[in-house]
Amino acid sequence: MGTVMGVYLPCLQNILGVILFLRMTWLVGVGGVLGTFIIVFMCCSTTMLTAISMSAIATNGVVPAGGSYYMISRSLGPEFGGAVGICFYLGTTFAGAMYILGCIEILLIYIVPQAAIFQIEGLEGPEAEAGMLNNMRVYGTIVLSFMALVVFVGVKYVNKLALVFLACVILSILAVYAGVIKTAFDPPDFPICMLGNRTLLSKGLDICAKTIERGNATVTTKLWKLFCDSEFLNATCDEYFTNNNLTQVQGIPGVTSGILAENLFGFYMEKNDILEKRGVPAVADPDVPPTNSNRYVLADITSFFTLLVGIYFPSVTGIMAGSNRSGDLQDAQKSIPIGTILAISTTSMIYMSSVILFGACVDGVVLRDKFGEGVNGNLVIGTLAWPSPWVIVFGSFFSTCGAGLQSLTGAPRLLQAIARDGIIPFLRVFGHGKANGEPTWALLLTASICEIGIIIASLDAVAPILSMFFLMCYMFVNLACALQTLLRTPNWRPRFKFYHWALSFLGMSLCLSLMFICSWYYAIVAMGIAGCIYKYIEFCGAEKEWGDGIRGISLSAARYALMRLEEGPPHTKNWRPQIMVLVGLDAEQNVEQPRLLSLTNQLKAGKGLTIVGACVEGTYLNNHAQAQKGEQALRKLMETERVKGFSQVVISSRLRDATSHLIQAGGLGGLRHNTVLVSFPKNWKQAEDNQRLRNFIEVVRETTTASLALIVPKNISAYPSNGERFTEGHIDVWWIVHDGGMLMLLPFLLRQHKVWRKCKMRIFTVAQMDDNSIQMKKDVMTFLYHLRLDAEVEVVEMNDSDITAYTYEKTLVMEQRSQILKEMHLTKNEREREIQSITDVSRGSIRRKNPSNLHPQKSITEEPAGVSVEEKSEEEVQLIQGKNATPTPTSPTSPASLSVGAMTPGEEMQMTWSDETEKGNNPSVVHPETARDMFNMKPNQSNVRRMHHAQKLNEVIVKKSQEAKLVLLNMPGPPKNRTGEENYMEFLEVLTEGLNRVLLVRGGGREVITIYS
Amino acid sequence: MGTVMGVYLPCLQNILGVILFLRMTWLVGVGGVLGTFIIVFMCCSTTMLTAISMSAIATNGVVPAGGSYYMISRSLGPEFGGAVGICFYLGTTFAGAMYILGCIEILLIYIVPQAAIFQIEGLEGPEAEAGMLNNMRVYGTIVLSFMALVVFVGVKYVNKLALVFLACVILSILAVYAGVIKTAFDPPDFPICMLGNRTLLSKGLDICAKTIERGNATVTTKLWKLFCDSEFLNATCDEYFTNNNLTQVQGIPGVTSGILAENLFGFYMEKNDILEKRGVPAVADPDVPPTNSNRYVLADITSFFTLLVGIYFPSVTGIMAGSNRSGDLQDAQKSIPIGTILAISTTSMIYMSSVILFGACVDGVVLRDKFGEGVNGNLVIGTLAWPSPWVIVFGSFFSTCGAGLQSLTGAPRLLQAIARDGIIPFLRVFGHGKANGEPTWALLLTASICEIGIIIASLDAVAPILSMFFLMCYMFVNLACALQTLLRTPNWRPRFKFYHWALSFLGMSLCLSLMFICSWYYAIVAMGIAGCIYKYIEFCGAEKEWGDGIRGISLSAARYALMRLEEGPPHTKNWRPQIMVLVGLDAEQNVEQPRLLSLTNQLKAGKGLTIVGACVEGTYLNNHAQAQKGEQALRKLMETERVKGFSQVVISSRLRDATSHLIQAGGLGGLRHNTVLVSFPKNWKQAEDNQRLRNFIEVVRETTTASLALIVPKNISAYPSNGERFTEGHIDVWWIVHDGGMLMLLPFLLRQHKVWRKCKMRIFTVAQMDDNSIQMKKDVMTFLYHLRLDAEVEVVEMNDSDITAYTYEKTLVMEQRSQILKEMHLTKNEREREIQSITDVSRGSIRRKNPSNLHPQKSITEEPAGVSVEEKSEEEVQLIQGKNATPTPTSPTSPASLSVGAMTPGEEMQMTWSDETEKGNNPSVVHPETARDMFNMKPNQSNVRRMHHAQKLNEVIVKKSQEAKLVLLNMPGPPKNRTGEENYMEFLEVLTEGLNRVLLVRGGGREVITIYS
Repeated sequence: MGTVMGVYLPCLQNILGVILFLRMTWLVGVGGVLGTFIIVFMCCSTTMLTAISMSAIATNGVVPAGGSYYMISRSLGPEFGGAVGICFYLGTTFAGAMYILGCIEILLIYIVPQAAIFQIEGLEGPEAEAGMLNNMRVYGTIVLSFMALVVFVGVKYVNKLALVFLACVILSILAVYAGVIKTAFDPPDFPICMLGNRTLLSKGLDICAKTIERGNATVTTKLWKLFCDSEFLNATCDEYFTNNNLTQVQGIPGVTSGILAENLFGFYMEKNDILEKRGVPAVADPDVPPTNSNRYVLADITSFFTLLVGIYFPSVTGIMAGSNRSGDLQDAQKSIPIGTILAISTTSMIYMSSVILFGACVDGVVLRDKFGEGVNGNLVIGTLAWPSPWVIVFGSFFSTCGAGLQSLTGAPRLLQAIARDGIIPFLRVFGHGKANGEPTWALLLTASICEIGIIIASLDAVAPILSMFFLMCYMFVNLACALQTLLRTPNWRPRFKFYHWALSFLGMSLCLSLMFICSWYYAIVAMGIAGCIYKYIEFCGAEKEWGDGIRGISLSAARYALMRLEEGPPHTKNWRPQIMVLVGLDAEQNVEQPRLLSLTNQLKAGKGLTIVGACVEGTYLNNHAQAQKGEQALRKLMETERVKGFSQVVISSRLRDATSHLIQAGGLGGLRHNTVLVSFPKNWKQAEDNQRLRNFIEVVRETTTASLALIVPKNISAYPSNGERFTEGHIDVWWIVHDGGMLMLLPFLLRQHKVWRKCKMRIFTVAQMDDNSIQMKKDVMTFLYHLRLDAEVEVVEMNDSDITAYTYEKTLVMEQRSQILKEMHLTKNEREREIQSITDVSRGSIRRKNPSNLHPQKSITEEPAGVSVEEKSEEEVQLIQGKNATPTPTSPTSPASLSVGAMTPGEEMQMTWSDETEKGNNPSVVHPETARDMFNMKPNQSNVRRMHHAQKLNEVIVKKSQEAKLVLLNMPGPPKNRTGEENYMEFLEVLTEGLNRVLLVRGGGREVITIYS
Repeated sequence: MGTVMGVYLPCLQNILGVILFLRMTWLVGVGGVLGTFIIVFMCCSTTMLTAISMSAIATNGVVPAGGSYYMISRSLGPEFGGAVGICFYLGTTFAGAMYILGCIEILLIYIVPQAAIFQIEGLEGPEAEAGMLNNMRVYGTIVLSFMALVVFVGVKYVNKLALVFLACVILSILAVYAGVIKTAFDPPDFPICMLGNRTLLSKGLDICAKTIERGNATVTTKLWKLFCDSEFLNATCDEYFTNNNLTQVQGIPGVTSGILAENLFGFYMEKNDILEKRGVPAVADPDVPPTNSNRYVLADITSFFTLLVGIYFPSVTGIMAGSNRSGDLQDAQKSIPIGTILAISTTSMIYMSSVILFGACVDGVVLRDKFGEGVNGNLVIGTLAWPSPWVIVFGSFFSTCGAGLQSLTGAPRLLQAIARDGIIPFLRVFGHGKANGEPTWALLLTASICEIGIIIASLDAVAPILSMFFLMCYMFVNLACALQTLLRTPNWRPRFKFYHWALSFLGMSLCLSLMFICSWYYAIVAMGIAGCIYKYIEFCGAEKEWGDGIRGISLSAARYALMRLEEGPPHTKNWRPQIMVLVGLDAEQNVEQPRLLSLTNQLKAGKGLTIVGACVEGTYLNNHAQAQKGEQALRKLMETERVKGFSQVVISSRLRDATSHLIQAGGLGGLRHNTVLVSFPKNWKQAEDNQRLRNFIEVVRETTTASLALIVPKNISAYPSNGERFTEGHIDVWWIVHDGGMLMLLPFLLRQHKVWRKCKMRIFTVAQMDDNSIQMKKDVMTFLYHLRLDAEVEVVEMNDSDITAYTYEKTLVMEQRSQILKEMHLTKNEREREIQSITDVSRGSIRRKNPSNLHPQKSITEEPAGVSVEEKSEEEVQLIQGKNATPTPTSPTSPASLSVGAMTPGEEMQMTWSDETEKGNNPSVVHPETARDMFNMKPNQSNVRRMHHAQKLNEVIVKKSQEAKLVLLNMPGPPKNRTGEENYMEFLEVLTEGLNRVLLVRGGGREVITIYS
């Protein structure tokens, strides 16, 4: 089929319909030519824009037969597709109801009024109305049953008659145009009788006069009797009747009469208002309610602008008729755009010209006379037609019948298509059909829904309902096009080039506006229905992969979000642990330490990124399968342990390289890990595990170099599973070095998890005998208060003799902690200035990183604090020095640079548990060569002494924390040389001996916790 | 300062204010007790919820002095912070104007009416109104200047007087309560004189009667003279005056009188309506406009519910007074929540009780009498007070003065704080101040803005303006809290625990609703102002890193989007090239082939992910700096070439491992590369570059294994830079093997870029002499038509003798291409079923991957098509076989599995240019051992023959495409063994000899282009 037969004519036939014949004149009369023109223009623009969007979608490759539903569902995904499909189905079904109601209206009002079952003759007001509605209901049900039967039996014939129906429509329209031309020179004679400015019912009216001269006597007319209590001239008459004259007005003054000016503006009426003619003088007391109102033509409904929109809109629907036939078209990609857009242009022209011509030819009172009660019960548009009103009456009757049949044919097929897609489980039954594929059940459902429309019984009430559903559908067509255009996947290459996302967006907005203009509560209900279907489909988990735009969005969104991130590391306030978990795989590619993932899960209150990494030895080509197996094991374990995150298995010829790769290049862009979680090697003393030991120490070194935090759980198998619940106990933090605050943050995070919720946090600090340990405890408590952490504080005093050996450590301890605690003693004023300096410092650092430094992430964290002080403005340095000029007793030696480092978020502060000379800057990062290494310094001497220290400290820790559920300790920096490695490990072993669960923590060189809000 | 002195009292003083004294009675009268109660309740709920949010923010660490502005800006970032800060500033400034206006209103109306400059005595209607407004303006300006001077000179005294002002307020309120109690047993005597149901002005009224009996004579009163033309009893009087009686009503019937019932509902009035008493009978002709209306008390403005909200709201603002003093508080974290919430509770109680008590004590006409014109010009609330109305008048006068002063003190400081933050450059001047830090310029600006409010001159008009700004500010406080709660960074740990995001959200919605309820156009204007400031700050690029929630969102969003993605590979329709560019770094860590990035940029129409990867040899610890330098070079180049994406430099002990690692583990989660772009090694024949050759071939192998597409530009330095523009020429595609469609997609993408826009695409296919090359051309054109690609098609015929050598290749060519072309001949019906089968297949594959397979991404692409066919339901297989039962002449041997593989998106279809036995599945992935390798098969023989083929083909290509700007060729699969490597490279060299720019393309084993929409 070509463009004309396959798209243009079907579209034309679907668009032109009942509203044009039954309501258009009324719309023009009530809304005025201008108002109605605006409505028509808006609606036609909407469909035109929708057609453009649809054309783009339809020409982006082979269109599957099934038309608009397929188009939307394949571009917007099953959820939206289903919701919109159902809307479209409901719209089509209600359209069927509307056609049937229109059909009966024509039949009962214009063709055979006597066929009415509930006679309304003589009834008044509400009763007459109810009677009419009941007639519609009874006849509607009969016609619906009959039509359903026809569709059930012989759908073929329906399709074949389509052209006949179209012929009827075109003939009728031509008749109207002919009639209009005729009015120019010979207007038809449709007189209306008016009393004052009120239109009288033409029924029962013989002559439009109060009296006639018969012979010589003045005889009263029938009209007289209607208004007076007797037929005599001296009878008491209705006051209005007495006061006003009767005039006869030409109903169709013709196109040359200039009546257009009179019809230009709207004339909205309340229900039961009497149809009045503008500009005609009448005598009436405004305070007296009209009497005898059943003699006049009354408005049957209250009309207002937005109602008119709702009633008019159905007459522009049907633009999808062409694309629905895509399967039968010879060249769908060419025919659909051209045919549809041509059809819309044609019909828009017809509608717009009709509006103007009706306004120009017909008198306002006739236009507003919905059922032609003032013009002898003629169809108003019929009065204009040439050669006879009956052309229109019958033309519209047949076309309306046909349209009804077609709706009843199309809707079940649409439902069947949706049901067959299987996205809405409860619709599944409607996917089945008769042996020949006819959807019996779907037809039944359609008829039932249609019956709802019939029971509503009023064309004016049903029209807005279907407007809603169609508008919804059109909105989504536009959305689909706009979305795909903006997403620009390479596969979005419509043949139809004249689309633009802005047009689609405009169309979408128009649809939405029209929905709310028509009726905001219907709009909300329709959206509610669509929303429910959407949620239902989502709930049922329709895992259709149709390559829809909605899923395409995820990709774009992820990419966009990631691109935005790469601005630098987050501020301390936004710091979250982004954990890279390094797990080992055994020979069967199973995870060696599954509890590592339990621990990760227990840290999930941090809500950061989690990457689980593992390494496989070999080459990618040969060990590919192994890696996949490993990754599957990882994912399975992650699912079991409910760790949400990503997994990466890397194959490398050397395990060491693979681990290093993971630490270096895990994550992407701004979404990088900042913390490495690795378990303490268990059997590192055994010779065969030497590689493991080496790997571990290298990991420690690399994390230090990369400024990553490191968490090392020792004895990981003793850690609780996610199912366990500690009902009591403590998490003990041994705050020996303030290393970015990680030590304090971890217990807080753990305690968010059910496993640790009931554990209490304790913080131990070590004080010398000569320290004021009471003041110290108070200071620490204030610090914790400002950190908003709940913890018990205990100050452990150690003998001078015991602590002498720790001199260098002690100094560090004091310096760092006291620096922090000193903050608590700042006066308000100083604190205020402090805040200002924070602002300035962070501004400074950003200013610094912007112009040339292309890798801001590194630049901040790896410069020692001293450098950033140098770059500060003089004023600020003064400020800082001013602060340091009042040192607290416990920190007599703290250098300026350290004090800034410790206090300003954004600046790093990292201390390794190593030589004294390193203090004040971050030696392992910047000057690794200048730092002396405690583990290598004096091989024999220091070794013995160190072990002694470790033992002493261990004794204290064991004494205090043996019963603790978890002990957190600072982890010292790794040795520089290979020779110190075993000593280092030994040191850690001694330090943690006798403790059940130990978490060794090493900060990443930046504050992770802040007292500032 | 403690909670009471530091927070509670300041809040109380700021909240209670002018509206309570000047408008509350009127609000109750107009809105009714119920309506006003609703307003009060809504407003108080809003501030209470805001206080809760604010408490959470304020207790999340040390609050910087500066209060609410700091709180918002530090939680929502500089853009929002600045916008909200300015709103808050404007709100405070207009509040100042409101207080001044209130102050003058009290002065001019209640204290010294005779001080008015523009006398309004005797003036009527608009003139009186204008006079009054002008009085306000003149006096307002004077008072404002005076106050500004006071602030400028001695801000200290202002603060010290705060408590005095508060005392005034409290005293006044106590007086009212006392008065209320007194009314219970001894109501004060405030009679109002009513004519009919109309309230008469009390001014000029001696006695409330028409006549009095003086002696024995009946003498007319003053009142008589006002309404009649003479003082005699027979004078002609105002009709209403004649018809109605005068009654005297008790203005304050007292709390026991039950007047509450009468005041329960609203009584809204139009402007200039006469104040009428409900339920009092009166004789009046509704059609006759009231005469002598200047004798009655008139409504001065049209009142409606939403207006009342706007006027009332300012009386609940001021809740931030406590948090603004955070710097001076002893324990801000405890005091702010308790003090603020207590103050709000107290004031809410006062307001609510006032509403009820006013309604219960005072008559409606008095309540509605805004300026007390019916009660001798008394302040209405004053009439209720005990011991004297003057307590209230003076109390409110002083408190209002004080509030005005405080606003003028606070606002400049706020402006100064904003200016000092430096986020709004043009405000910078306001950051400076006098020597003592007083912000002189800011004070000047504040006074100027305040003057605007004064010029508006009406309290009722200014109140809604400041309501807007405060509501805006409160909305953002709520937003900040909700956001932080939902983001849950570890550093969000407010001490105040009784917050919840839902409460904050509710507060936010309430604020927004109130804004639109007050006045939707003011709301839009306020939002517009805020929006402009936001955009301005964004435009100025305030790179403040305050650790705000807005920036925290990016991280969460990226993580969330990425988590969502990991569902599987995108559908063919959503396929984009996600390119991993492998570049080499030279000794100085500069990029060796910068044109690779130009090419990447030219491919950006794909809008996919780009990762630029490079490798450095060494260890992470030692070569860290080098890697950083390399990464910086990469980023610099990416910026120059405008490639948006990510860079990764990996250090490894072996370069090979690093490259392999990039290919394996580049990207994260669902955001993985699917295409590798690597340049052809230039000098591979030289011995020293042997490693490079090996690396290249391994990359080819690994991409094949990993199912990644591979793009290899040869002679990359000859490629155009981004600045070049080809004005003509062709992009030639030699379609020898259909390898997922990459070959066709690449020219399309390139042509989206300016460099290639003018180039035309040509497609060459090779036909045998016995092929119907005309039909073939037609088929190819149809295929391209359906692919929506514009290209010329050329079928190159080769002699039988020439082509015999290509037998195996030819077979593949024919099979694949013909399979695709066959599709064009399908009947409509078949095509429809095809669509259905696509749906089913993709459903099948998803169903398959769901239950157990944890790595869906791999499972789809790596299973051969044959496997998925086996898993299909019987019905579907039949369908496919049915299709194959009608093979087209050109594909006599195509197996079922291939046909599905070629046609269904989501299934892979990959053919390597290798042995015939491999066809139909993806040998290199699944059965690498079964495949014979053409480059190793027969070392001597095949080598010669292969080179011959390559030469022959090369001849044809050179003949046709020598002038082409770019030639795209299929890249054959790599050899299995090392021995074949050099031959392979030689083959590629021969094949591409004599061509300027060649792009060798190898598909990734899945369709990337589809004819389906």
